[in-house]
Amino acid sequence: MTYAARMLDTHPVEITVDRKQLADAIDALTSCSQACTACADACLGESAEALPGLARCIRDNLDCADICDTTARVLSRRTGDDPAVGRAQLEGAVRALKRCGDSCAEHRDAHEHCAVCEQACRDTERIVQELLSGIGLSR
Amino acid sequence: MTYAARMLDTHPVEITVDRKQLADAIDALTSCSQACTACADACLGESAEALPGLARCIRDNLDCADICDTTARVLSRRTGDDPAVGRAQLEGAVRALKRCGDSCAEHRDAHEHCAVCEQACRDTERIVQELLSGIGLSR
Amino acid sequence: MTYAARMLDTHPVEITVDRKQLADAIDALTSCSQACTACADACLGESAEALPGLARCIRDNLDCADICDTTARVLSRRTGDDPAVGRAQLEGAVRALKRCGDSCAEHRDAHEHCAVCEQACRDTERIVQELLSGIGLSR
Amino acid sequence: MTYAARMLDTHPVEITVDRKQLADAIDALTSCSQACTACADACLGESAEALPGLARCIRDNLDCADICDTTARVLSRRTGDDPAVGRAQLEGAVRALKRCGDSCAEHRDAHEHCAVCEQACRDTERIVQELLSGIGLSR
Repeated sequence: MTYAARMLDTHPVEITVDRKQLADAIDALTSCSQACTACADACLGESAEALPGLARCIRDNLDCADICDTTARVLSRRTGDDPAVGRAQLEGAVRALKRCGDSCAEHRDAHEHCAVCEQACRDTERIVQELLSGIGLSR
Repeated sequence: MTYAARMLDTHPVEITVDRKQLADAIDALTSCSQACTACADACLGESAEALPGLARCIRDNLDCADICDTTARVLSRRTGDDPAVGRAQLEGAVRALKRCGDSCAEHRDAHEHCAVCEQACRDTERIVQELLSGIGLSR
Repeated sequence: MTYAARMLDTHPVEITVDRKQLADAIDALTSCSQACTACADACLGESAEALPGLARCIRDNLDCADICDTTARVLSRRTGDDPAVGRAQLEGAVRALKRCGDSCAEHRDAHEHCAVCEQACRDTERIVQELLSGIGLSR
Repeated sequence: MTYAARMLDTHPVEITVDRKQLADAIDALTSCSQACTACADACLGESAEALPGLARCIRDNLDCADICDTTARVLSRRTGDDPAVGRAQLEGAVRALKRCGDSCAEHRDAHEHCAVCEQACRDTERIVQELLSGIGLSR
């Protein structure tokens, strides 16, 4: 059981979203944010021949890292929750994850860190979409 | 001229959005993020009688600080830009700014820091909405 | 194997620090940052009687969340590394982790989320101290 | 008067540090964080010939942006303050600002955004050093 799951289990406020789904989304977003930060840096460390072709990928990594980080923080907060704020932020995360996953996919055969980061983005996008569907149903 | 404006002026990539509007949005978002962080902390420093009534306001401050921060970062990046990612994040920011402005408005008569923070949120929301309209037109 | 470990394994730059220790520190810092964000929010959701006694704990949680997050990002970057920047940031993290662990310890019997967060802070402090010793030896 | 100064003026907790110096440091750190985010991105947008020589500069920009951001947040919080946490984080910021200023200085003649960012780093380093001296005296 991760810290995210344990913190939800010990939270004093009633949590109306599926706890398992919520903890999974928080964990996926924090791991993916780290993978994106690391992928941007790994791209920066590539050869002078490869680096120019990776500029857009680095930019998408940086956006995705920041957006995933912020989305995990918003989801971690349950007190006085406004689902509309969370939903809008989750939709922003889906956009960034899709874009970053697509950028990394273009480089996965040449750079293994892009393959790992693509997987993190795709997995997280799916988990966030599932959470969004759940939130949608409980509106 | 702020650093945000000077950095846009010296950026090597062609910027298709209105530079003045973009720099204003970046500056408003970074200032508002700071105001929200400070308002959350000022609320925490209020009396034991007042604090429980401020819990939702603190939570909204924290979300708004994180979301404004990330949105300013995304807007500051112009290389390999995907307007769809920026637009989704700006829409998330509008939601958070509206919510936080409303929460602070409830406490502005009792706590002057909430009045200042409400103004930061309202101003930033307006500037972000203007930028969103501009981005919309240039699609 | 976590994403942090996989990203280090696929990084193009030679990594002179112990990879296992580095990945463990990055993972501990990101998990602890999340636990601190969640503990601040769980404290905010406590009763009107309990909340005023938790103000300092919330403040320490917020500092620790931000500092752990930034430290994990700095550690995740290996290209063009300046160990002095990383070391100074790690020392800042140790301070924040110690302080937040101490604050949560005061409330662990009354609030289980503080017990969980204290454990996250103590574990992370130990792992970061180990990494700092390792970096020290390799200077 | 900036929002940072107004938030300090309306804060309910007694502030023992020089308010003017504190507000200046918070404003400098938030502006510098933005400049560093923008400089990293402007470097990424440079030509394929120039980009490989800017990899270390980008990395230092990213570290400095994150560290300045977190330091501004810690300084913005005055409730239940532990000066030791703030001081350690300020020392981390000085290291990052010095390093990033030095990296940008190497490229200021070729890239004007590096000249602007160097100035932001140097100014902020000086202001943070002044604040650190002040905090030192009041220990």
